[in-house]
Amino acid sequence: MEKVLFNDKMIDRENASFSFDDRSMYFGDGVYEVIRVYSGHPYKLEMHLQRLQRSADELDIPYSIKEKQSLKKSVMELIDTNNLNGDGYVYLQLSRGATARDHLYERHIEPFIFAFTKEMETPLNQQEQGIAVYLTEDIRWLRCDIKTVNLLGNVLAKRQAADHDCSEAIQHRGDTVTEGSSSNLFIVKDGQLKTHPADNLILNGITRQVVIDLAEKQGLSVSLTAFTTEEMLEADEAFITSTINEITPIIEWRGTKHGMMKIGPITKQLQSELQADIERTRSGE
Amino acid sequence: MEKVLFNDKMIDRENASFSFDDRSMYFGDGVYEVIRVYSGHPYKLEMHLQRLQRSADELDIPYSIKEKQSLKKSVMELIDTNNLNGDGYVYLQLSRGATARDHLYERHIEPFIFAFTKEMETPLNQQEQGIAVYLTEDIRWLRCDIKTVNLLGNVLAKRQAADHDCSEAIQHRGDTVTEGSSSNLFIVKDGQLKTHPADNLILNGITRQVVIDLAEKQGLSVSLTAFTTEEMLEADEAFITSTINEITPIIEWRGTKHGMMKIGPITKQLQSELQADIERTRSGE
Repeated sequence: MEKVLFNDKMIDRENASFSFDDRSMYFGDGVYEVIRVYSGHPYKLEMHLQRLQRSADELDIPYSIKEKQSLKKSVMELIDTNNLNGDGYVYLQLSRGATARDHLYERHIEPFIFAFTKEMETPLNQQEQGIAVYLTEDIRWLRCDIKTVNLLGNVLAKRQAADHDCSEAIQHRGDTVTEGSSSNLFIVKDGQLKTHPADNLILNGITRQVVIDLAEKQGLSVSLTAFTTEEMLEADEAFITSTINEITPIIEWRGTKHGMMKIGPITKQLQSELQADIERTRSGE
Repeated sequence: MEKVLFNDKMIDRENASFSFDDRSMYFGDGVYEVIRVYSGHPYKLEMHLQRLQRSADELDIPYSIKEKQSLKKSVMELIDTNNLNGDGYVYLQLSRGATARDHLYERHIEPFIFAFTKEMETPLNQQEQGIAVYLTEDIRWLRCDIKTVNLLGNVLAKRQAADHDCSEAIQHRGDTVTEGSSSNLFIVKDGQLKTHPADNLILNGITRQVVIDLAEKQGLSVSLTAFTTEEMLEADEAFITSTINEITPIIEWRGTKHGMMKIGPITKQLQSELQADIERTRSGE
């Protein structure tokens, strides 16, 4: 019987439903994390929980992971209870909580946290062969750094991409490229990596951070600088990073601009470094 | 026993809860309306349902109010069943529906619609004495014309306002004033009304539309033009409009700019015209 985490309890998924007054439902008033699980082990769990804490703090949701030492334990237990011994992920959402609907929230509302697990296979084909991406205007709000469930901009961009046979949308504000609808974007030019700085316009992806770290350890230069759509099309290599897609090369641009790309050596090198890091998690290190 | 509308059914509110897979919960992937009820009669129900249809269309949610003739009837029945004979409102939300969580929605998902009623009194004190409002930067996405539940920008602005003892936040993008966190804004200068045009930066409020119509019938000139924060502070009168607040004068600006205002004759005239229109609904006309 599949279980889900509901605050401090594990309950049967088939009995799980949300309060009629939950603010995530009425205002998208919640934050979340998706944590990859490899061979039953969560990858970068601490980093995800730290980011969840930051998101909660930025939205003024009174939740302290430190005070709830049990959260990490609960996530581990959920993986265990659901026999997620292979690959998959944990979805974790923190809602401001349930209270009579009103734009104005009060600070004494008890937050609500829940999580479920899902099995998944690494999209190896996409990682090996690359993907086509769809370029579209970034219409999202100006606090994309908070991982909230106000995701309609991302959802519409993702649908646009699929309607053009692309697996991801790459968003740009005017000429400036920001990020994918559920991923970050890196380009490589003359051996140097470039990705949008972690300001209010992008979500600072965990895989983004891991890749920057791995690149620097390999002696590669990483510039945290915004770049234009033109620079992007003239790049030697380009790839997206995300918890689900890891490192996936881009081979074609569609949408507001068109172009083709080849999968390059730096992308492959970083893919290999990331797999080595993941391998350490798999083996329980 | 209080009832809520759940698709085509009336169910006890205490038994109502949301599906564990509802997309409103995970992506704020839903649209809504708040319809005022005066003496048991819904006000401008047709306009609200038309706007709901537009919001659904813009988000590519396959829901046809025409095909579901029952929706209007269901709203009336809900008011009746809950004995809402006095004043209150109906809250109505259309979610894209329930399906395994994925940014990418499929078009065959069955939408989910629900509604509840609530009693409320008209905020007469605020309408007579005016309110202080808090000026803050508009950080919302670029499709504010769709009435979605992606409301975090509005929610944060409303909380900021309350923290400064203001009952509403007025948002501006740079120097350009857009609208309130849950209301539209009008200013009056030299006898002329001005309000932001109904483009992608504001929600085209039903009360906004009613007030424009009433003003024009009174021979008042209404300019649908964006204005600056400076113009706003130098206006002769200013008021907000919303389904809940009707017409409420502004007497003080706080936040990014400061200033005081008096309640003027045009505001009072329009308040009186709006009450006359509401009176026709009350008497069942």
